Amino acid sequence: MVPTVWFIAPIGAIAALIFAFILFKSIKKQNPGNELMQKIALNVRKGAFAYLRQQYKGVLLFFIIAFVVFNFMAWVLNVLHPLIPWAFVIGGFFSGLAGFIGMNTATLASNRTAQAASESLNKGLKVAFRAGGVIGLVVVGLALFDLSTRFYILGLLEIDLKTITTIMLSSCMGASTQALFARLGGGIYTKAADVGADLVGKVETGIPEDDPRNPATIADNVGDNVGDVAGMGADLYESYVGSIMATAALGMAAVTQIFGLNSEWAIKFVTAPMVLAGVGALLSIIGIYLVSTKEDAGIKDLLRALNRGVFGSSILIAIVAFFVTRYMLPAPYSFGIFLAGIIGLLAGILIGHFTEHATSAAYAPTRGIAKQGQYGAATVIIDGLAVGMKSTAAPVIIIGIGILAAFSLSGGFTIPALGLYGIGFGAVGMLSTLGVTLAMDAFGPIADNAGGNAEMAKLSAEVRKSTDALDSVGNTTAATGKGFAIGSAALTAMALLAAYLEEVRSGLIFAGDKVMNILMANGEIFAVETSKATITDFMNYYNVNLMNPKFLIGVFVGAMVTFVFAALTMKAVGRAAGDMVAEVRRQFKEIPGIMDGKNEPDYARCVHISTVGAQREMVAPALLGILTPVVIGLLMGVAGVLGLLAGGLSTGFALAIMMNNAGGAWDNAKKYVETGQLGGKGSDVHKATVVGDTVGDPFKDTSGPSINILIKLMSMVSIVFAGLIVAYSPAIEAIYSSRSEKTEMQQVIEHDSTEIQTQENEL
Amino acid sequence: MVPTVWFIAPIGAIAALIFAFILFKSIKKQNPGNELMQKIALNVRKGAFAYLRQQYKGVLLFFIIAFVVFNFMAWVLNVLHPLIPWAFVIGGFFSGLAGFIGMNTATLASNRTAQAASESLNKGLKVAFRAGGVIGLVVVGLALFDLSTRFYILGLLEIDLKTITTIMLSSCMGASTQALFARLGGGIYTKAADVGADLVGKVETGIPEDDPRNPATIADNVGDNVGDVAGMGADLYESYVGSIMATAALGMAAVTQIFGLNSEWAIKFVTAPMVLAGVGALLSIIGIYLVSTKEDAGIKDLLRALNRGVFGSSILIAIVAFFVTRYMLPAPYSFGIFLAGIIGLLAGILIGHFTEHATSAAYAPTRGIAKQGQYGAATVIIDGLAVGMKSTAAPVIIIGIGILAAFSLSGGFTIPALGLYGIGFGAVGMLSTLGVTLAMDAFGPIADNAGGNAEMAKLSAEVRKSTDALDSVGNTTAATGKGFAIGSAALTAMALLAAYLEEVRSGLIFAGDKVMNILMANGEIFAVETSKATITDFMNYYNVNLMNPKFLIGVFVGAMVTFVFAALTMKAVGRAAGDMVAEVRRQFKEIPGIMDGKNEPDYARCVHISTVGAQREMVAPALLGILTPVVIGLLMGVAGVLGLLAGGLSTGFALAIMMNNAGGAWDNAKKYVETGQLGGKGSDVHKATVVGDTVGDPFKDTSGPSINILIKLMSMVSIVFAGLIVAYSPAIEAIYSSRSEKTEMQQVIEHDSTEIQTQENEL
Repeated sequence: MVPTVWFIAPIGAIAALIFAFILFKSIKKQNPGNELMQKIALNVRKGAFAYLRQQYKGVLLFFIIAFVVFNFMAWVLNVLHPLIPWAFVIGGFFSGLAGFIGMNTATLASNRTAQAASESLNKGLKVAFRAGGVIGLVVVGLALFDLSTRFYILGLLEIDLKTITTIMLSSCMGASTQALFARLGGGIYTKAADVGADLVGKVETGIPEDDPRNPATIADNVGDNVGDVAGMGADLYESYVGSIMATAALGMAAVTQIFGLNSEWAIKFVTAPMVLAGVGALLSIIGIYLVSTKEDAGIKDLLRALNRGVFGSSILIAIVAFFVTRYMLPAPYSFGIFLAGIIGLLAGILIGHFTEHATSAAYAPTRGIAKQGQYGAATVIIDGLAVGMKSTAAPVIIIGIGILAAFSLSGGFTIPALGLYGIGFGAVGMLSTLGVTLAMDAFGPIADNAGGNAEMAKLSAEVRKSTDALDSVGNTTAATGKGFAIGSAALTAMALLAAYLEEVRSGLIFAGDKVMNILMANGEIFAVETSKATITDFMNYYNVNLMNPKFLIGVFVGAMVTFVFAALTMKAVGRAAGDMVAEVRRQFKEIPGIMDGKNEPDYARCVHISTVGAQREMVAPALLGILTPVVIGLLMGVAGVLGLLAGGLSTGFALAIMMNNAGGAWDNAKKYVETGQLGGKGSDVHKATVVGDTVGDPFKDTSGPSINILIKLMSMVSIVFAGLIVAYSPAIEAIYSSRSEKTEMQQVIEHDSTEIQTQENEL
Repeated sequence: MVPTVWFIAPIGAIAALIFAFILFKSIKKQNPGNELMQKIALNVRKGAFAYLRQQYKGVLLFFIIAFVVFNFMAWVLNVLHPLIPWAFVIGGFFSGLAGFIGMNTATLASNRTAQAASESLNKGLKVAFRAGGVIGLVVVGLALFDLSTRFYILGLLEIDLKTITTIMLSSCMGASTQALFARLGGGIYTKAADVGADLVGKVETGIPEDDPRNPATIADNVGDNVGDVAGMGADLYESYVGSIMATAALGMAAVTQIFGLNSEWAIKFVTAPMVLAGVGALLSIIGIYLVSTKEDAGIKDLLRALNRGVFGSSILIAIVAFFVTRYMLPAPYSFGIFLAGIIGLLAGILIGHFTEHATSAAYAPTRGIAKQGQYGAATVIIDGLAVGMKSTAAPVIIIGIGILAAFSLSGGFTIPALGLYGIGFGAVGMLSTLGVTLAMDAFGPIADNAGGNAEMAKLSAEVRKSTDALDSVGNTTAATGKGFAIGSAALTAMALLAAYLEEVRSGLIFAGDKVMNILMANGEIFAVETSKATITDFMNYYNVNLMNPKFLIGVFVGAMVTFVFAALTMKAVGRAAGDMVAEVRRQFKEIPGIMDGKNEPDYARCVHISTVGAQREMVAPALLGILTPVVIGLLMGVAGVLGLLAGGLSTGFALAIMMNNAGGAWDNAKKYVETGQLGGKGSDVHKATVVGDTVGDPFKDTSGPSINILIKLMSMVSIVFAGLIVAYSPAIEAIYSSRSEKTEMQQVIEHDSTEIQTQENEL
């Protein structure tokens, strides 16, 4: 059934996994360093797995509940395809597996990177980047393996292609849920540990960062792993599978409209995004090896080499994508859709560039924040918020132009479904380099952890300098990474928004509504087969326009939910950090001999407190994100849900960028002062910028990244619950412009008005 | 032509003006206090008028440019009714006049209130509240006088009713522009002076607030007038005229759809909101007198008396509104539209209540912020932001329910235009009590200024205690006032959003497009006369739905512009305050004898610096607000503009509430600590909360309130430029669901696909 070229997807997946395994083996073979280094790494590793175990327990519980609910929806309410509960669970499993392998790699790499860095800077870079490569390739490999085997098996079961795409899209909610818990839990964990360690250790007790005497120091290092490695990985895993499957579903819609339901083109439109992803996976492997073959070079060369990896594979992907689209898609549009993919690639790079401009101390905005430190902490806060808010302009304009270009180039102004397919293709294009870009992202926290390991193991200042250099390379790549994460989240959410309508279609068909009666401008009813309805038909049927108050209220609620979600996550960090502060203070007081190194602090207890805190505090924001689309759906119907998603996406995109960039800029403003500028470390300016940095911590590491997930998750929840909403909220929302037949009400009015006029005339 | 009952509107206007004059006379007769008090008041008064003169110069320049541009649009481009430039100027003039009279009253009242308070608390309240009453009644009176005389004159000119409503709606942009400059300029001025006075005076030099030795102290007092009196007044003036005229335009649309263009009902639908406003004006006078008749009572009784004024007139308005709607509107819907008005009244009161909960130290959120002061400034900031973000929930839910209820009760789910008329009626209902609610709002800054006057004139501690008591009453009423301002802005903007389509209709007709060709679901074209097209027709014609990328991009840009606007206004305050800080430092250094009172500081120079700073800094945000709708309109057409307005409204509503409430909560958290809680004044907790308060200053007094204006102004600009957009951006945005006739492109694809399939079969 599938075209031969499709096999590039599973081949890419398996190749990615094989090379990930090879890289993993080569890391494991590295010198793990001296006994102390190994012991410290083991502590971090134990802490990370303790956290993961706890989180997976929570996730398991959630998945069991969801599985029961979904089966109820499938078998009792009859509003869900019976395979979806299983697909949901499997989707979640693979994302979780990727998280597990990623964490396993990252925690093995820290001491090995520190050891390698003590031998040569270049060796250190190599180990850290290879570990990042494992994570990148595992995410891409597992995701693509999951998607393609499932796609193949569903095909073998002789389920029709349309149903396959809707089942598979729903299953992405599994990955979405994993991502939510990973980002939220990881974000809360890492900041609780960080703030706890800093506030009591650095500020109150005056011991340096990563000092082994600080009870929270292991938890802090664990936090880097669970927040930055596992959280970021799960976030992009979700975007990756979400964008591919949303584009597949949109492809199906486009084909149906252009060629009819059973066209030969269908399988090509549906599989093209998978093929592009497969090509991306293969070329990412080359990209990673491009980087790792460089030997004995300076920091700048290494950074250039890293960039060469990304740009190299991007260019290669662009070239291959041209042939893939040309071969797979119909001629008049294949080039436009190819260009849409390229636009996605470019948008990701551009957003990364502007993110760096807003947050790096090399540019005016961040330096301006540092300068405001002369007037005190308040002006640092105000200026940082202003920088964050202003920095929303460039990404919104880039994404705006990207959407319009992708839509129009792929022919959306003639056939909207095709334009939406093009937008989806843009998202897939942006994410096709995920293998290598995620490798660069994960490189940062691994280098950071290596530094922590070196510090705690009291390696020489020389080694620490090397790991600091690696860390600074990591910080530069991280800016690109964050822009990439939010940009891909926006494009993916956009594709999911459109794909949602396909699930509504399935829901209608499932509920037995085989015909949609659309009231037209002339007052007549036009009956269209639900299976053949166009996207414009859905807009008309459900009145998804601005003058429908349900839609408008949805937009309002979407904006509001984003703000409330941000508030909840910030407060969560505050509470969890409070617990940690109390615990660290207690240990310093109750365990004698910590300060002179005679007694070891109780690291495990701090790890436990962060773990429990994160688990407890992520419940409220998670529930808000999951329940809002269901509640709005039941109360406001399809139009309300679409309003919610649009409002959440637009406000969430802006708010996430604002929080990420303000946080990053505050962090770097502080670091800028610490380089000796404006009075340097310990000056009043420095103290003012420390306040900024502390405010920025939950901004950039918890709330901002979690909003990335929120905007995708709300779409995913809507998609899974589409059947329920369609069946249980008023199907036809009758805002008519009735012309031919007057409504009863109108007749009553006219009757009354005649009466009143008669009365008036009589007076 | 007008129904007799309409004359309630001009009668209400004139009555309001007469009573304002009587109140004003009675204030002027009050004892102006001793010589020093008079001198100080005169300084403030001079400063206020110096500012106003400067601002009106700037506004005049803008009006001249706009007048030329509009005449060019009217006579050369032929996209604007030639009366609109004049209407625009007149609308601006009356708003400016209201600002002038308000400022005149407020600056006369400060020393008289201080003097009266030195005699008895009750006398002080009376003077301050009467001055507030003058401002409330002048705003309502002038607005209603302007609207009703213009309406009558245009009627005498035998212009048809439809054109009258569109001309009058456009003219509201005059008031909108005044409001923008008043809020922005006033907000920047007041905070620059405040921060300058506090930072150098209180913090660096250690002299108390309002100390005459502080060079910025007069500027600070001027700021309270220009920010809180003139800014708030212009804001609500704009909402008032905007909501009335938008509702009139929507009434015209509803009538056209139900009864046809020339129905007898038209004049009734159009004049009903004016009549309701007239009733409100008359009953507000009673409300104000209800308050002022209370004699020799305690603070609590006085607060109760104030509330009785508002609630009393609200209940009276509700009762009269029932009869007005019953008499003027067709029977089956009159009760629903009446209920819509009541819903607006209730929504305003409820939002005020929740605003108080979020920002008053009597409740948990604000106390929680103060408690976070134990961990330092950073946690105060994080907690305050979280409180602000969370506090968006209640107002959004209230407005959401309000919209849905107003829309459905007035029959919107049968005839959308009627539902939108209902929403407009809700806004008018909310604002019908403006005379008395604005009196309560203006009371606050007048009491504040009286306190400043007493302090500077070194009146006894006893007197200062009385003015402090008045100030605290003012703070309580201010919470209600702010909720009211943002709630009415949201409802007004919503009504303007719908009214925008009426201007598009006029624009189309003006451009000669007498017929709109709407492509229907069955692929046929339905031609509808533009003058008779329904709102749903416009949605279809311009594809104002979520799957149109132009609309979606508009939503994104709307969200982004709000953030950037907030950033610009915050930065503006920072820069203007920097100038002030430098000047105050210079005076302390260069003018000898300031500190021991031997030499007077140069107050006028500080006033000048604030004035110039405010004028300079308001240009960038003003241009952003005015140009964005025009640029988006030209690039993205009608769908893009509607997306922009929806995105700006939803994000702006949430962001404004967040900034207002976070700012208010920080302010009160600081004051809470100053009452002796958590260590009291001078403690570390206090210092931490002072940082919060300083961050909150531009939040609550500049950015937050300015966003109120932004969301209305963007609608107003869109309305005035509708003709241009319609004429110069692609009129028919062809996203079709073509069915009966296949497009050329589709035929090409099918041709190609057949070819490819043939080739494949051959292989």
